[in-house]
Amino acid sequence: MAEISLYRPFPAEEVPGWNFETDVAVIGFGAAGACAAIEAADADARVMLFERNSGSGGASGLSGGEIYVGGGGGTDAQRAAGFDDSTKDFTAYLKAAGGPCADEAKCEVYGREALSHYAWLKAQGVPYRGNYLPGKHIEPTDDSTLIWSGSEAAAPFCDIAKPAPRGHVIQHMGWGGGRPLVDILEAAARARGVEVVTDARAVALVQDGTRIVGVVVRIDNANRFVRAAHGVVLATGGFVFNEAMRRKYCPDTFKLNDPIGDKDDGAGIELGVGAGGDAIHMEQFFTTCPWTMPESHAYGVFVNIQGQRFINEDCYHGRVSRCAVDQPGGKVYLLLDNAHFVQPMDFARMSIAGTGETWDEVESELGMPAGTLSATMAVYNEHARDGRDPLFGKRSPILTPLDQGPFVALELDFQASYFSFFTLGGLRTSAKGEVLDRAGMAIPGLFAAGRCTSGLPAWGHGYSSGLSLADCTFFGRYAGRSAAAPGGN
Amino acid sequence: MAEISLYRPFPAEEVPGWNFETDVAVIGFGAAGACAAIEAADADARVMLFERNSGSGGASGLSGGEIYVGGGGGTDAQRAAGFDDSTKDFTAYLKAAGGPCADEAKCEVYGREALSHYAWLKAQGVPYRGNYLPGKHIEPTDDSTLIWSGSEAAAPFCDIAKPAPRGHVIQHMGWGGGRPLVDILEAAARARGVEVVTDARAVALVQDGTRIVGVVVRIDNANRFVRAAHGVVLATGGFVFNEAMRRKYCPDTFKLNDPIGDKDDGAGIELGVGAGGDAIHMEQFFTTCPWTMPESHAYGVFVNIQGQRFINEDCYHGRVSRCAVDQPGGKVYLLLDNAHFVQPMDFARMSIAGTGETWDEVESELGMPAGTLSATMAVYNEHARDGRDPLFGKRSPILTPLDQGPFVALELDFQASYFSFFTLGGLRTSAKGEVLDRAGMAIPGLFAAGRCTSGLPAWGHGYSSGLSLADCTFFGRYAGRSAAAPGGN
Repeated sequence: MAEISLYRPFPAEEVPGWNFETDVAVIGFGAAGACAAIEAADADARVMLFERNSGSGGASGLSGGEIYVGGGGGTDAQRAAGFDDSTKDFTAYLKAAGGPCADEAKCEVYGREALSHYAWLKAQGVPYRGNYLPGKHIEPTDDSTLIWSGSEAAAPFCDIAKPAPRGHVIQHMGWGGGRPLVDILEAAARARGVEVVTDARAVALVQDGTRIVGVVVRIDNANRFVRAAHGVVLATGGFVFNEAMRRKYCPDTFKLNDPIGDKDDGAGIELGVGAGGDAIHMEQFFTTCPWTMPESHAYGVFVNIQGQRFINEDCYHGRVSRCAVDQPGGKVYLLLDNAHFVQPMDFARMSIAGTGETWDEVESELGMPAGTLSATMAVYNEHARDGRDPLFGKRSPILTPLDQGPFVALELDFQASYFSFFTLGGLRTSAKGEVLDRAGMAIPGLFAAGRCTSGLPAWGHGYSSGLSLADCTFFGRYAGRSAAAPGGN
Repeated sequence: MAEISLYRPFPAEEVPGWNFETDVAVIGFGAAGACAAIEAADADARVMLFERNSGSGGASGLSGGEIYVGGGGGTDAQRAAGFDDSTKDFTAYLKAAGGPCADEAKCEVYGREALSHYAWLKAQGVPYRGNYLPGKHIEPTDDSTLIWSGSEAAAPFCDIAKPAPRGHVIQHMGWGGGRPLVDILEAAARARGVEVVTDARAVALVQDGTRIVGVVVRIDNANRFVRAAHGVVLATGGFVFNEAMRRKYCPDTFKLNDPIGDKDDGAGIELGVGAGGDAIHMEQFFTTCPWTMPESHAYGVFVNIQGQRFINEDCYHGRVSRCAVDQPGGKVYLLLDNAHFVQPMDFARMSIAGTGETWDEVESELGMPAGTLSATMAVYNEHARDGRDPLFGKRSPILTPLDQGPFVALELDFQASYFSFFTLGGLRTSAKGEVLDRAGMAIPGLFAAGRCTSGLPAWGHGYSSGLSLADCTFFGRYAGRSAAAPGGN
């Protein structure tokens, strides 16, 4: 008998007997898998969903439940706050956020369809309070809906597309809206008769000729054969917890110590590539450190070990953090004055590396040569007084001179401080959710969505909060709908 | 009948008849393919070599013919010049040059075997004058042997391994030693009875069960089936001329306009992945611009558009160039004083962007805010007078104050100036040249070498001249020897 392997499909002719028969088999019960299941069921397919854990969630369940939505004149929350977000601007931002890795087709379709997707989420029961919360937030600390969750208002993005806040957060008190979001999607799936099998890990695809016709799942220590008459949807997440894959495809993540996810071991990527799929942009990763908590720290200035600035600090915290991790020497410094310094959160594991009555003193305490950091801050302060940052284009309101001592330099060490990270590379899929082979053709019967694919959040330096859940939920739906079509693709 | 495809092997049972029968089929007649053929023939295998062009060469034939060799106390040329290069230092440098992408096993084996490889090259007839040419050279302009061809003497490498020059160049007047190098290897292969078929492009592998047993080549517009009883060696080069692959795997190369290679379309990578192989570090690329020509420009200082330095300029020109391409704004400036400025080479396409009697004037001409570039140069000059570069660790002799005006800023625009580049990612192979699948197991009958693999030159930021040809020739030999073994792997 052929081997049961992640790396190559099992031949259908050797299947000893089907333990389950369904139209669509969805693998993974995060937001992507849940949305795929809902749409497949709505297309009248029989749907089974297999999850390796004992319940739903995945990385989505650990998230803030924030979805990046805009365009079409704006959502209710955007319009109520006075943001008339055009599809043109929204789409342009999506492409800019994808940088050199942007999937134009996905940006275009989501750009057009985001508003109706938002309506769909509400129709599933996802509640939104509908209000706008100004300021700099990682997630709302109350139950507000709309926050700035990307680099929209920061250079160069603000020159590419008219800025608008687009992070839409489920109504939920405090952080952690991902868990109730997945709960609602799970309920919607179950209400449609989706059959959920937990503690069932996918270990192989089943192939008949060139077509994927099923999946082998490991249940109670036995291989169970699932026939999926229309298609299989992979929604298994990224590979942040697979060190061997990270070493081969994304070794820069070894600079960091805080992977986030839920058993994201890249299994879906391996299954897809084994079936002839194409894994792209595998070196891309998201990272962020909570440097804007407390919010007054958003007014700070970052420098590298040479005392040089490297980013307009009004960008999204993840973009700032990703650029920080590019800097040499394994650490960067966040410079603050007395007006803006507050003790950082314990969990951020940032330390005070230098203090001084002047920036010269801080420079000296950090062991930097005279005329480096002090010159950087002289130029910064001189122009900040005029409301300008000619070097990096940082903007008000957080562009303010840092010239009232005493001054502090916080050290953000990539290994010691809290830099969470997850991977962004994965299977290349069409906007319809079909897994594409290396020639760009759809693999019959095989679909994928979420972080086992390369999608809207394709580029670490352009990540914005809510892009991944937007991608998971929207293209999860498309994948489910495509998989449900009789005869599939 | 199954499709003839780069993307999946053709089933042996459908082969209509074998047009050629051999023990080892080598695909590609650059240095890697030539060395594989020689070793396979020396192991008493029948060897056929298929090349898509009308003659040998590949990217190797376009190169300088420089091979990175050291360790074991030093080569004849190293010892004659007073460099007793230890295997420990040599191996440590190889690993540092590979950075986060280093293949430890390949570094170790080449570290131990490089001296005997050098002797083998001589035994094939490769001539070396045996002398050392001091200074900063891209390639020798005479027929000298030994040059500094990497970042050995520059921070941080000089602190990791005791520096020694290791670029060994074939005796050949002027640039372009790659062509005579390949000619010699070709002659050595032909002398052993290797049957060379030119104008023959590989279009598919042939598989019997899990084993690769042959290859389909396109000759005179017809598919010809080649049975390779022991194995197939892929030596087809990188993918710098395949824009679709670059878009998917290495999009940062679109910043640049001067690919170098010889029809390197990634076909071998596709063939290998189609057979179950693993393509790794696909985002890595080499680039360089000829900024050290004239040599006096090596004394210059690089700044980005913010007027900040970003590298110790005594590193290898490719490392400096690769770090330059990381800088924002699409260009960098090379700063020179009157003592060191010479008109740049026409082909470099660098232009004078600013001049001045003081660095303040240059800063102003470049449109940079006061106190940026001028502060950078004040700090640089102050410490250079003491022979120090506390920020980046640049060293003498090219660390000298640039304080005698008039001054010049040359603009190196990534799109407009000459930045040659080629790709470094490719198939994951064992040190024996076996193509490994994603589980790390050797694919029976399939071997690879050179730039269709990820090898010694794995990391663009650590590239050193001669690493790629060292990798091609040495691991080409190993691949040929492994493929020749009866029963292969």
